[in-house]
Amino acid sequence: MQPARRSTTRSGVHLRRGINQSVRMLNPQTSEATELPAPGKFGARILDLVRQLAQFSELPEGLTCTYFSPAHKAAAAQLYEWMRSAGLAAEIDPVGNVVGRYRSDSPAAKTLIVGSHYDTVANAGQFDGRLGILTALVVAEHLQRTGQRLPFNLDIIAFSEEEGVRFSAPYLGSGAIAGCFDESALARRDANDISLATVLRKEGVDLGTIQALARAPDTLCGYLEVHIEQGPVLLQRGSPVGIVSSITGSTRFRVTIEGLAGHAGTVPMSLRRDAAAAAAEIVLAVERRCSSAPNLVGTVGQLAVPHGLINVIPGTCEFSLDIRSADDATRNSAIADLRAEIEQVARRRRVTAVVKELSRHHAVPCAPRMQSVLAQAAATAGVEPFYLPSGAGHDAEMFAGVTDIGMLFVRCGNGGISHSPLETVTVEDTDLAARILLDVLLRLN
Amino acid sequence: MQPARRSTTRSGVHLRRGINQSVRMLNPQTSEATELPAPGKFGARILDLVRQLAQFSELPEGLTCTYFSPAHKAAAAQLYEWMRSAGLAAEIDPVGNVVGRYRSDSPAAKTLIVGSHYDTVANAGQFDGRLGILTALVVAEHLQRTGQRLPFNLDIIAFSEEEGVRFSAPYLGSGAIAGCFDESALARRDANDISLATVLRKEGVDLGTIQALARAPDTLCGYLEVHIEQGPVLLQRGSPVGIVSSITGSTRFRVTIEGLAGHAGTVPMSLRRDAAAAAAEIVLAVERRCSSAPNLVGTVGQLAVPHGLINVIPGTCEFSLDIRSADDATRNSAIADLRAEIEQVARRRRVTAVVKELSRHHAVPCAPRMQSVLAQAAATAGVEPFYLPSGAGHDAEMFAGVTDIGMLFVRCGNGGISHSPLETVTVEDTDLAARILLDVLLRLN
Repeated sequence: MQPARRSTTRSGVHLRRGINQSVRMLNPQTSEATELPAPGKFGARILDLVRQLAQFSELPEGLTCTYFSPAHKAAAAQLYEWMRSAGLAAEIDPVGNVVGRYRSDSPAAKTLIVGSHYDTVANAGQFDGRLGILTALVVAEHLQRTGQRLPFNLDIIAFSEEEGVRFSAPYLGSGAIAGCFDESALARRDANDISLATVLRKEGVDLGTIQALARAPDTLCGYLEVHIEQGPVLLQRGSPVGIVSSITGSTRFRVTIEGLAGHAGTVPMSLRRDAAAAAAEIVLAVERRCSSAPNLVGTVGQLAVPHGLINVIPGTCEFSLDIRSADDATRNSAIADLRAEIEQVARRRRVTAVVKELSRHHAVPCAPRMQSVLAQAAATAGVEPFYLPSGAGHDAEMFAGVTDIGMLFVRCGNGGISHSPLETVTVEDTDLAARILLDVLLRLN
Repeated sequence: MQPARRSTTRSGVHLRRGINQSVRMLNPQTSEATELPAPGKFGARILDLVRQLAQFSELPEGLTCTYFSPAHKAAAAQLYEWMRSAGLAAEIDPVGNVVGRYRSDSPAAKTLIVGSHYDTVANAGQFDGRLGILTALVVAEHLQRTGQRLPFNLDIIAFSEEEGVRFSAPYLGSGAIAGCFDESALARRDANDISLATVLRKEGVDLGTIQALARAPDTLCGYLEVHIEQGPVLLQRGSPVGIVSSITGSTRFRVTIEGLAGHAGTVPMSLRRDAAAAAAEIVLAVERRCSSAPNLVGTVGQLAVPHGLINVIPGTCEFSLDIRSADDATRNSAIADLRAEIEQVARRRRVTAVVKELSRHHAVPCAPRMQSVLAQAAATAGVEPFYLPSGAGHDAEMFAGVTDIGMLFVRCGNGGISHSPLETVTVEDTDLAARILLDVLLRLN
């Protein structure tokens, strides 16, 4: 562990309403810092920290905190301060990860990572990523305060980049730690045409040191992540938390339909080759096919007739297609069926359909050992263990194949909405998640 | 009739390949001007004039000639020259119509207008509007040359504005002559935020004189228009020309579907309220319902998920809807059914659908007298009369209720495509249309 390499300037950061008071209230140098909660009070403290961290935003309205923005650097500095004051050996690493170690007494101890990310999407919710970091932090505070040592080093890592907003390259923080940092991402440019390499160099980073951040697999004994569900399943089921069985695989496509433009008044319906009508048929086919199996979802999130006019039959229609499943065979079978259906629609309607695969990620199972310990801890906390796949990607994915991974989901309110200011969790569910995490840490050998 | 009020500067006009040679070849001051064609040779001359007029374009590539652009003014000056050299009393009126009168010997004669428009859409075909003007011009040349007088004044009018491209206000030229110029259009602004009123004033137009351009109905004895079909019906049927039975009515809508945005990976299919899937269902309903009756068409020309993301379930989807029929009852019945179906889809999918009517135009029948004379002339030319409705709007519409209207359609090639550089007609079909028009003029009392 090295000391923090970055200064903690807050110029250019919008401090939102209430920040000064909150910061003073929880300043680690003051007496309040020692008034740490007992189990049952974890939730309130975690949510207070979440709210404080959300004050650092690029924009005056809402929460936006993208990679290496002034707000992002201020958030990192705040996390660093909190980790230090919790008694952790803390640093901010070259790619912006904030790492806090609760050291084991055993010199030969391996390391368990408990992490999630602190970057956000634009106009984000407060809990995505951050709930997991701060739950781990509050649990570590408790361990430190109560003097409970662990047989492993506990590394709380606040990953700097997961969302991929600024450089369209996700997992920059966790990828570096997991040893799968994609060097080609260095050439990617943000909306101001500044490359990732330029940004990192400006922060004083020697790009040659990034690969050295990778943890050797034989030094790790596991990876855990607490995260909001970002969906409605736990809410619908009435479960406060869920044990992630796997992170779903996904395949993404761009589909372009080319028909024949024509005058909306003069071409009889029977003679049309309407690209939008063909696309509509495919949108419904995606919906129908992906409703036919559990743990399968398909989404047409982008759909447009480029330069469409009210009085012109669409000659072109473009749309995106995102297919996910916890089971690769299920996903691949749906894709094969949909490719065949797209071809059939195109042939019948005398249009062409170009289907371009953009990305493909295999499903990643969570380790049975981690699922089992999470289930024991949940049951001990009085919650019937409930397993569900994660439809979203998470930092945990990066560690699959490196070490055993496990994830605990916390129920979202407001219908399960995420990536939105409407994102919410309850203090009770958050407290339960922290108690389960604490129990898991004490159970893990 | 007044002398031309506008200068004929060509600054800012792109003269496309071949213009100088063509202009010289057909300069009315040279001997070629007197080498006018006999029936059977009309077609070649009309298409040559069409090609020459297409040289005046706002952009170096393709034909774009919108209201009061430099290209538009140059085209008007060229039409004015051609009309004068054909022996017509010509003027360019305040709203840019080019009017050429072939005067009757009878002082009490009424006036028959034969017109169409010379403005174009962006990257247009050469024939839309212009074929009708130049067919009438060549027929007038023939009448003048052969000394055949008519019992009515024949006014060839090249209308300045029909497409509505620059100010989203169509029929500015024909509306003024027909007495239905919409004064509210004066406040409309173009893409450079210049109002129509400003443009007209800059051209030296006293806005108070526009309403005085209206022809008194009792001075008119009819309105005729030759126009390309802009559709595939004549081509599919093998008919060179068609007699327009009516101009279809149309109703246009903007539909906004609001569902619930959500994460593409985490929301099960059964819990989604996908706005794009709802829109897709409606697009197919429009297609299905409008295929159920002849002379009915329905088009979703604009379709978009605003700010759609590949990994977000669409919360909003917007689309346009254009429903047309030659028969108002057929159109209104389809609209009622589709409104009910939209409501049903919205209710079932738990989304909201706001359907906003943008415009409504009733169907306009062509005068039986005009249809009958066109049919007689077609039969005399050896063509079996074939009647079809016009799915597109035309300047003729403006004169419905003012005087008897009639339209003759000319077959389009290339599958009937229009509003495209691929728009085409044959020299034979054009010649036939000119001969039919000549015969009609001689038959009309």
